[in-house]
Amino acid sequence: MSLARVQHISVSLDGFATGEGQSLEAPFGHAGERLHEWMFATRWGRAMLRRPGGSGGVDDAILRLFPAGIGAEIMGAGKFGYPGWHENPDWKGPWGSNPPFHTPVFVLTHHPRPSIEMKGGTTYHFIDASPAEALETAREAAGGQDVRIGGGPTMVRDFLAAGLIDHLHIVVVPILLGRGVRLWDGLEGLEKDYEVESVSTPSGVTHVTFTRAGL
Amino acid sequence: MSLARVQHISVSLDGFATGEGQSLEAPFGHAGERLHEWMFATRWGRAMLRRPGGSGGVDDAILRLFPAGIGAEIMGAGKFGYPGWHENPDWKGPWGSNPPFHTPVFVLTHHPRPSIEMKGGTTYHFIDASPAEALETAREAAGGQDVRIGGGPTMVRDFLAAGLIDHLHIVVVPILLGRGVRLWDGLEGLEKDYEVESVSTPSGVTHVTFTRAGL
Repeated sequence: MSLARVQHISVSLDGFATGEGQSLEAPFGHAGERLHEWMFATRWGRAMLRRPGGSGGVDDAILRLFPAGIGAEIMGAGKFGYPGWHENPDWKGPWGSNPPFHTPVFVLTHHPRPSIEMKGGTTYHFIDASPAEALETAREAAGGQDVRIGGGPTMVRDFLAAGLIDHLHIVVVPILLGRGVRLWDGLEGLEKDYEVESVSTPSGVTHVTFTRAGL
Repeated sequence: MSLARVQHISVSLDGFATGEGQSLEAPFGHAGERLHEWMFATRWGRAMLRRPGGSGGVDDAILRLFPAGIGAEIMGAGKFGYPGWHENPDWKGPWGSNPPFHTPVFVLTHHPRPSIEMKGGTTYHFIDASPAEALETAREAAGGQDVRIGGGPTMVRDFLAAGLIDHLHIVVVPILLGRGVRLWDGLEGLEKDYEVESVSTPSGVTHVTFTRAGL
């Protein structure tokens, strides 16, 4: 069975998954790196930065689910770049020539463009589609594997509201951002359809996983 | 040293400390008992309901800090009753003749009335005061002990914004209420002044404590 999975969306205690004032230089706005310090303290996170060391406990283990069993990703237009990237015909995302996805990636945008094949197995496809249509398209490309719903928060919220998410992993970071994009708006009662687990770790964050009941 | 302490304010994952539509019959509005099920599953919580049994672990232990070392409470007008209670001269709060406070309790209200002495050591005083003034008054009454900042969420937020809270214990309950009174609005960067600890427990909630740095 091919699941739709959200892996490690970090959320502040006041519910913001990104800050205010996002730009190419500040993809998380005024939040800076504060939502992701826990990640860059792990071995997995440090390897992303090509640095040695890092913690090897539960934070690290759960991060390693990022690629596991994933055959395609869907991401929102905001995650693919910066406000206005669709006006730049040369823009190929912020991850360089060998992006960390290594699968087809479907970018939801009202400005589709031809697909871009990158090194390492990542191909960006640009589609203007509803969440359900996008998931169907990504599932076909995933060859029976799971589809990662990659964020940002607005598209994750849309997929949750449409009842499309089978597994949601969010990371509550005990900071108060005060402003930005809220993950949870309009999702009253979401927990009723899921088995929910909360586990805090020594880094200070709390992993909350929602797994669809009966899966 | 007399601390200003908040003990066990339950907050949904989307940041609401009470629901919408509060009334005498539904003090937490549409949230009902969902924010406090974890509490009524403990020995301490069950004893409040005059029932036996309950869990005896960390949830229970942290609840038992409620009276420990407390010499007075300050509560908001909303907690003392229902919308419009100040128009009822006979209203003595929703806790019956022997309220669970057993200390002086200062009710913040724009409609002060004479103090009411209850059984068991609780006396309700009604004051129209700023957070700082109320805390000074309550500290005098506390005889060197701590002052509990009792809620609801609006007054806790006011005391936090004024920098008056030394110890904040909130309980994140993994439900999405969608609407109600938010605890965290306007508190950007609060964590900078505190040491923060997050501990999830088998009941599924996460205790987050903010203790003023250097205390």
